[in-house]
Amino acid sequence: MPVIRVDVEYLPGVEDPEAITILKNLKILGYDTITETRTAKSYEFRIEGKLEEARSTVDEIASKILTNPVIQKYSLQVVDP
Amino acid sequence: MPVIRVDVEYLPGVEDPEAITILKNLKILGYDTITETRTAKSYEFRIEGKLEEARSTVDEIASKILTNPVIQKYSLQVVDP
Repeated sequence: MPVIRVDVEYLPGVEDPEAITILKNLKILGYDTITETRTAKSYEFRIEGKLEEARSTVDEIASKILTNPVIQKYSLQVVDP
Repeated sequence: MPVIRVDVEYLPGVEDPEAITILKNLKILGYDTITETRTAKSYEFRIEGKLEEARSTVDEIASKILTNPVIQKYSLQVVDP
C-alpha cells in the first residue's frame, strides 16, 4: 500500500513566526552560531490503491486542505511505493 | 555554511491527535482510501562553523529543546554541508 509524504513549508519571503521565536530563544540560550531557522510540517498518508491514483489523491488533499497557497507551498515524496 | 534539518515525529504507539483528526475529517470529505496518517514537524537550521560542530550543536538543540523524548523521536539530515 503506497505511503506518500507531504511537506508543507512557508513560501520564501513569508514570515515564519515559530522560526523567529525559536531563533530568538536559541540566541538567549547561548546558541549564537545559528543564523537562520525555518520550520515545516509533514503529513504521511498510507493509502489504498495503485501509486498513480494514490499520488493524485494525496496531491489533491495537499493543495485543497493542507496548504494555504497564499503563504505556503508543498511537495510530495513517495516514502513507499 | 551548513544547513541541517531536524525531523521530529511521534514514537510508534504514541497517539498523534492531529493525525487522528485529519484522518477522521478526510473520511468525512470522501477520501476513504486513506488508511493511516502520521504528522511530523521539521526545523531547518543554517549554522556557522564546520559541519561536524554544526551537527553536534543541532543534535544538542534537537534532543534538549525540540523533542519530548517520552513521546517523540528525532532524526537529523544534512541539507547542505
